[in-house]
Order: sequence, then structure tokens, then C-alpha cells
Amino acid sequence: MSAMDKTNLAAAFARFSDFWSPKIVGEVNDAYVKLAKLKGAFIWHKHEQEDELFLVVKGHLRLRLRDRDIELDPGEFFIVPRGVEHRPVADEECHVLFLEPKTTLNTGNVVNERTVADLERI
Amino acid sequence: MSAMDKTNLAAAFARFSDFWSPKIVGEVNDAYVKLAKLKGAFIWHKHEQEDELFLVVKGHLRLRLRDRDIELDPGEFFIVPRGVEHRPVADEECHVLFLEPKTTLNTGNVVNERTVADLERI
Repeated sequence: MSAMDKTNLAAAFARFSDFWSPKIVGEVNDAYVKLAKLKGAFIWHKHEQEDELFLVVKGHLRLRLRDRDIELDPGEFFIVPRGVEHRPVADEECHVLFLEPKTTLNTGNVVNERTVADLERI
Repeated sequence: MSAMDKTNLAAAFARFSDFWSPKIVGEVNDAYVKLAKLKGAFIWHKHEQEDELFLVVKGHLRLRLRDRDIELDPGEFFIVPRGVEHRPVADEECHVLFLEPKTTLNTGNVVNERTVADLERI
């Protein structure tokens, strides 16, 4: 992919099949556009300094916060403010576009076997 | 709209009808998520220091660059790198999500009657 090509989201999602492993599809200023396929429940975590945008492209995402759940269908986004604990849960396969600083780790303040530090570019 | 609400893109686009007047629908770190309805041809301009992401939500956008055109359908995005002249053209009404720094002016290096300096939040 050249930085000067357009990205078709459906085609980009078709290029990978692993879950919970964000892929970089674009770079805009100090942020990355990332795509990930989600299925099942992720861990509770937060990003101390970074807001994180979740835009659902396919499927349904339940974004659990400590005080309520945000239910996202395709064409809906939510921005998790920095410092807010959240836990993404997808009962069925769900495709999500993320927008977040280049420094953001998928597991935020938690580093464990689900942490993906080196992201593939697709 | 509270910063802690989700945004449904179709519902947000239904809240305004003017063209070429970006509305702020979200704030993520140092960037705004903006929505705009486009119809007709805009001016040639560039943003010296800012990359600008165009994601087409509805309709078709021709993003003219000096050396080629980028044709965007719904579910496709293109990131115009800083310094690159571009001219959005929509033969029919087109709905676009933008992601760009809070400092970005819609007309970039050109300030004229199409410049919108004070953006409405919807």
C-alpha cells in the first residue's frame, strides 16, 4: 500500500483474519488509522494520555465502561476519553476502525499476552 | 451532544443541510472529527502542516490532485498529505467524514468567501 493510495475498508479487512491484532492502514498527523477484527471479550484497560475513537464498520460492538455499556452498530462511533476504563466485547465477529495516537498500545495500561506492540501495516 | 455519547453518522448528517460547512461531531486528542455535505466543486487549496483524512459515507467524491483524481465511494478513505494541493468535487450530494487537526481551515492556504472559520458543533 502506498501512502498515496485510497483505502477501501471492506478490501482492507479482507486482507487479514486474526482477531484483536490491529493493522495500520493510514497515518494522519500524529495518529494512526487502524483496523481490527474483534470477537469475544477483551480486557479492561485505559489509555492515560490518549483518546481513542472506535468506528464500527461491520457487526456489533459492546463497549463496556465502568458505569454503562455503549452499543455500536455499523456507522456509529464512540470516542473513549483518555483515562476512562473500557472493555470491548463482541459476541459475534465485529470489524472496527480505530483512530488513536501512534503511541497507543492496544492494551493501554495493561501489558500482557494480548498486547500487540509491533503492528503490521496492510 | 455530550462528549460521552456515541455518534450515529446517518443521524448526525440528518441534523444539517448546508453544503461545504463542516460540523464538529467529535474531538479525539488534537483532532476534530467533522462531517460535511458536499455538492459541486470546491476550490484548489492545501494545508501546509496538516494531513487531512476524507472518508466518504454516502455518495461519490472525486478528490482532484494536481497529477490525478482519487475517486471515493462509501467506505473508502484517502489521506491528503500536508502540502498537497487538492480540490474536492461532488457531482451529486456527497457526505464526508473528515479527520484533521483542530487548527485546520476548510480552505487551507486560501481564505475567501468559502472559508468557514467558526465551526458549529452538532
